[in-house]
Amino acid sequence: MRGNIVLFGDSITEESFRSGGWGASLANIFSRKADVLCRGYDGYNTRWALFLLHHLFPLVLDSPTKPPIATTIFFGANDAALPGGFRERHHVPVQEYKDNLRKIVTHLKECSPTMLIVLITPPPIDEERRLEYARATYGEEAMKLADRTNESAGVYAKGCVEVAGEMGIPSINIWSKMQETDGWQKKYLSDGLHLTALGNAVVFEQIVRVFKEARLHPEEMPYDFPHHSEIDADNPDMAFQLKCA
Amino acid sequence: MRGNIVLFGDSITEESFRSGGWGASLANIFSRKADVLCRGYDGYNTRWALFLLHHLFPLVLDSPTKPPIATTIFFGANDAALPGGFRERHHVPVQEYKDNLRKIVTHLKECSPTMLIVLITPPPIDEERRLEYARATYGEEAMKLADRTNESAGVYAKGCVEVAGEMGIPSINIWSKMQETDGWQKKYLSDGLHLTALGNAVVFEQIVRVFKEARLHPEEMPYDFPHHSEIDADNPDMAFQLKCA
Repeated sequence: MRGNIVLFGDSITEESFRSGGWGASLANIFSRKADVLCRGYDGYNTRWALFLLHHLFPLVLDSPTKPPIATTIFFGANDAALPGGFRERHHVPVQEYKDNLRKIVTHLKECSPTMLIVLITPPPIDEERRLEYARATYGEEAMKLADRTNESAGVYAKGCVEVAGEMGIPSINIWSKMQETDGWQKKYLSDGLHLTALGNAVVFEQIVRVFKEARLHPEEMPYDFPHHSEIDADNPDMAFQLKCA
Repeated sequence: MRGNIVLFGDSITEESFRSGGWGASLANIFSRKADVLCRGYDGYNTRWALFLLHHLFPLVLDSPTKPPIATTIFFGANDAALPGGFRERHHVPVQEYKDNLRKIVTHLKECSPTMLIVLITPPPIDEERRLEYARATYGEEAMKLADRTNESAGVYAKGCVEVAGEMGIPSINIWSKMQETDGWQKKYLSDGLHLTALGNAVVFEQIVRVFKEARLHPEEMPYDFPHHSEIDADNPDMAFQLKCA
């Protein structure tokens, strides 16, 4: 009955239903209006994401279920892992990253020409915290080279915004947005990469803003069934006849 | 591909994706394993819930989608509103409440004989806070009679547990459980009825416990696609051929 909003991405999407997470916050504001489904895959880059594409978003002819009304695509943090760093196996060159994003968007448009598709850039990187994290997790070996740099994440963010522009869809440059705030490193990032509660709030606000610009307003969507105040306690079937016919 | 876990209930379910909410916490632990869908309806009693039953849970023959693997049924807080109180229109007598729960459970069993169905009792009531809330919201008029009493909620809780026993399904007596803790009134309830973050945590823990007793363990369920550590970066299709065939 109600539509789906799908959150497709890496660990930053997979974790988005933790306490204060941006996914849970979206589910909360779309309560009784749309289901928010998490399709986040820790460690995935866009190259690996392509293997999931037809499974997660079957073409309408292949599937009994409706395509999502909106999808967020939030990759790049793993693609941007440095070649030679201890996350090298996740690295995807930026040209291929852009091309993979194009393939994902093209497929979603084929699934549904009315689907709202939003590209989200990787977040900024706090390199100091990444090194601390690496040392704590992998020991001194990991210290030789950072896994990610903020500069590299910025290159992928720029690429992501370019693809969105080319393809005529909205994007959120979370890499830029977060760096507008002093102290973004500790305020928004828990380990130099993943989001704190405040970082989650920034992503949530930006998605709501872009959704509203595209006229996806939860306040303007109908409830799936009558609000309790519309139900006449002596004659409840009336309200349901109207709304459930 | 993955199954659904449906949360069917009143406002305590509708609010369960707020920060720290029990619904969001369930979605988080079932990430990549099952989708947790919120079907909470503020103000609804079991009488009104019956109107939604066939829409929310169509029989398999009528629907292209699979029935849920598990459903929580969390009603009673509105049914237990006192006749004569300012929430009188939500009141449903306890015998009818029990009978409505039986109808809901019977229908879900028809949808799927393997679905895990869990009945949850209404929470306890802090009458002092309910009166404060009523005064703040409706003025002195509302003060003449409390909308709910803890004793009445207890009668419905007992009825709910009895129905679960009769029908051979698990139940969670959250009314009793919360009252085992000193200071439950302020610790677990925000307005004498709805849940604080700690109250949400109690509901979450109890559902996880009952799910595990029924062998619905997120840790033991497979990921929907390969974990990133299983992907050979030089030959990624191998991992996907195995898991997406």
